[in-house]
Amino acid sequence: MFEIIALDADDTLWDNELLFARTQDRLRDLLAPYLGSPLTTEDLYAREQRNLGYFGYGVKGFGLSMIETAVELTDGRISGRDIAAIIDLVREQLNHPVELLEFAEQAVSEMAQTHILMLITKGDLLEQERKIERSGLARYFKFIEIVSEKSAETYRRLFERHGVSPAHVLMVGNSIRSDILPVLEIGAQAVYIPYAITWVHEASLPETARHEGYYQLENIGQLPRLVARLEGAGINPARQEASAREV
Amino acid sequence: MFEIIALDADDTLWDNELLFARTQDRLRDLLAPYLGSPLTTEDLYAREQRNLGYFGYGVKGFGLSMIETAVELTDGRISGRDIAAIIDLVREQLNHPVELLEFAEQAVSEMAQTHILMLITKGDLLEQERKIERSGLARYFKFIEIVSEKSAETYRRLFERHGVSPAHVLMVGNSIRSDILPVLEIGAQAVYIPYAITWVHEASLPETARHEGYYQLENIGQLPRLVARLEGAGINPARQEASAREV
Repeated sequence: MFEIIALDADDTLWDNELLFARTQDRLRDLLAPYLGSPLTTEDLYAREQRNLGYFGYGVKGFGLSMIETAVELTDGRISGRDIAAIIDLVREQLNHPVELLEFAEQAVSEMAQTHILMLITKGDLLEQERKIERSGLARYFKFIEIVSEKSAETYRRLFERHGVSPAHVLMVGNSIRSDILPVLEIGAQAVYIPYAITWVHEASLPETARHEGYYQLENIGQLPRLVARLEGAGINPARQEASAREV
Repeated sequence: MFEIIALDADDTLWDNELLFARTQDRLRDLLAPYLGSPLTTEDLYAREQRNLGYFGYGVKGFGLSMIETAVELTDGRISGRDIAAIIDLVREQLNHPVELLEFAEQAVSEMAQTHILMLITKGDLLEQERKIERSGLARYFKFIEIVSEKSAETYRRLFERHGVSPAHVLMVGNSIRSDILPVLEIGAQAVYIPYAITWVHEASLPETARHEGYYQLENIGQLPRLVARLEGAGINPARQEASAREV
C-alpha cells in the first residue's frame, strides 16, 4: 500500500506546454515582419536556458526571455508597440483557463477515495496557485507542494517533512527529468505518462525504462488500475514491476 | 511563552526595498533622454499595481512593469538597446548580494536558542529561496514558509497546518499591511519594526498602534528583550501590552 500517491500538475493533470507553444507561435507571427527566416524554438530556448538560473520557471521569466529574444534577433529594431504586445501575450497566458487532460479528474477523484494524494508542482508560486485553484482539483489533494526545482534533494526533504519513507511513495508525472529520475534516485516508485509536447528542457535526459520501480502509462485514466495492481501484487518491487508490465 | 516567533524577511532581516529603489533610479536615468520630466515613483507604481494581479510580487514582474512603463511613457520610442538594458537591471537585482540589517543575525541567533522560529516571506518562490540561502540565516529557522500573499487567511491556514494556535504566535515585520494587521486579525500578537523605505503598496493602510497585542520597535536588536518581557509578564494580553510599553 502506498502511503502517498504524488502527482505532477502541468501536463500531467492539465495542459501547460501547449500554452507556451501557442504563445511562441504568436511571437513568431509578431516577429515575422522583422526577420528573414521565421523564429525557431531553438532561438527562444537559447535565451530561456541562459535565463533559467536567474528567472526560474514560469510565464513571467518566459516573457522576459521572449522580449530579450525579440530585441536580439531584430538587432534592436523591434518597435515599442510590439514589445508591449509581447507583454500582452504574457498576461493572456497567465489568464488562460485551465484545461484538464482527459481522464484527469476521474482518475484523481477515484484515487482520493483510497489514498492520500499529494500535488507536487514546480514553477512560479502565484502562477501555480492560480492554476490549482482554477483546476477545481485542489479538494482531492491532502497536500499541495509548490517547489522551485524538482531535484532528488527536493523530493527527499519534502517526503521527510511529511514523515513518509520514499519507499512508500508513488510519483506520477510527464517529465523524465523532473518527475521520474529524481524520485527513482531516492527509492520511490514512479509512473511516467508522456504528454503530447515536451519542452526541450524537460526532455534533455535519457529515459531509463528498465529501472526498478518505474512504470509507463499512455494516459492518466489507467493510473487507478496500475495502483491497484501494484498494491495487489504485494510489496516486493521486483514482483510489482512484473505485474505492472501486464497492465 | 510563545510557541512560535515568526519573522518576515524582506526589510525585516535584510534590505529589499532599497534594491528596488536603486533599480528605479537607474530606470529614471535610462529614460531621462526620452522624457520631458523625470520618471516618478507614481508613473511606475501605476503600472505595477495594475499588473500585481497578474504578476504578483518580485523582481521579474517588476521588470515587466518597468518595460511596460518605458514603452508607454516614451510613446514606443524607447530603443531595443534600452529595453535590453532594463532586462539587465532585472538580472542584476536578482543577483545582488543579500545585505543583512543591523542586529538581525544577532537577534535571530539569540532567539533561536530559546524559541522555535518561523520565517514567513511573501513573493517569488525562487527569488525568496535564493535570498534565504544567501542570507546565511536559514539555519536559525525551524520552518520557512514562502507565500504569494500575506492575508489573514494565509496566516490562519499556515498556523493551523503547524498545529499552533495564533494566540501563541508572535509575528515580527516591517509591513503594517502584510505582517501586522492580518495576524492581529486572527488573534496573534505582532511587532512592527519600520524600515527606512516603505513601498507605497505596503504603506497604504493606516497604522493601528492601539490594537491589543501590537508592539512597535525601532530595530530588530530590541526584539529579544521585548520577547523576554512579554513572556515574563505572563499570558494575559492586557498585562503583556502594558509591559511592552516600558520596553
